[in-house]
Amino acid sequence: MLLCDIGNTSLHFFDGKNDYKKDVEHFDSLSITEDVYYICVNPKLKEVLKLLKNWHDLSLHVEYSKYYETMGIDRIMAVEAVDDGIIVDAGSAVTVDVVKDGNYEGGFIYPGKIAMSKTYVGISSALDYTFNFDCDLKTMPKNSQDSISYGYLKTLHSEVMSHKMDVILTGGDALEFAKIFPKARVDKQLIFKGMQKIILTIKESS
Amino acid sequence: MLLCDIGNTSLHFFDGKNDYKKDVEHFDSLSITEDVYYICVNPKLKEVLKLLKNWHDLSLHVEYSKYYETMGIDRIMAVEAVDDGIIVDAGSAVTVDVVKDGNYEGGFIYPGKIAMSKTYVGISSALDYTFNFDCDLKTMPKNSQDSISYGYLKTLHSEVMSHKMDVILTGGDALEFAKIFPKARVDKQLIFKGMQKIILTIKESS
Repeated sequence: MLLCDIGNTSLHFFDGKNDYKKDVEHFDSLSITEDVYYICVNPKLKEVLKLLKNWHDLSLHVEYSKYYETMGIDRIMAVEAVDDGIIVDAGSAVTVDVVKDGNYEGGFIYPGKIAMSKTYVGISSALDYTFNFDCDLKTMPKNSQDSISYGYLKTLHSEVMSHKMDVILTGGDALEFAKIFPKARVDKQLIFKGMQKIILTIKESS
Repeated sequence: MLLCDIGNTSLHFFDGKNDYKKDVEHFDSLSITEDVYYICVNPKLKEVLKLLKNWHDLSLHVEYSKYYETMGIDRIMAVEAVDDGIIVDAGSAVTVDVVKDGNYEGGFIYPGKIAMSKTYVGISSALDYTFNFDCDLKTMPKNSQDSISYGYLKTLHSEVMSHKMDVILTGGDALEFAKIFPKARVDKQLIFKGMQKIILTIKESS
């Protein structure tokens, strides 16, 4: 049995122990014969996988009344994996979601570091710096690089910390964001844990 | 005597009572014969104004040791106008600066609403919403429009409020941002007040 989180450009597999990625472009879905439980935000690939007996779409088994209509399935799976805490999923967007006593309390969307970096350059070419994740967030900056680093990171930090909950970091940029959330638990396989939980409920109810 | 804050696209005049704007493109600097005290971030216009006797560049009279080298002259003038408080200047960028007992403590740069709106659309066409400045910042959102509105506005709000200082709002979008900072003092002429303070020090020292 494999788990798979499918984005627009890559398939992220998990075999229960290790995780690895494959390009959507060069992927042959018929090359896998064992059972695959997946979530997918790629509409084209979703149409293909529907036709395959061994590929099982976990989005069909989510209790949607807990969430909202346009919420991404990857965010939902991360939330399913957590009983109490604030989840920061740092990728092309940074999604932040709050779970209390197993109930989803809501969340927000913040730009990922690449998108936000482009935003600053778009405002002024004088703001063409990479973000300094080692920037001192306790002192107001007095230079341009830290002015945008603090503007991007400390605003997010202040809001996340204001909830006074355990912070769980996941996503491709989790380790970089761990620098500004040093007490956070980093769990790059959080989404797979949510998927495993859903699989368990399917098996229990069948 | 006139005061003038010159940006890349417009000249913002203040005659001591009223303020008004003129386009940089159609502006004839020789049309004004009275004394004008100005700050200017437009390099082309700056070269022209240097040649005119009645145009006085206030940036030559700033005590730069209080600030940092690449800090915008408009931010410096806003800071000059304040003795204690956190200044939020909301325009194409949102600059936030802290002043304590007349000393500049540092500041940061956050994207303006137009730039940030483009950022979200760039991440996903599903995030193509205008920001809801009436969004409830006390509750975590459960819909897409509020997810990005909260992501943009509440993060900024949490950081600004964490300083526990009086908030002073200025800039073209000051009234919109006043919705999320209801206790803030709105002062659209803050930069001119800083300029007047610099003029006073020039006159006192001459």
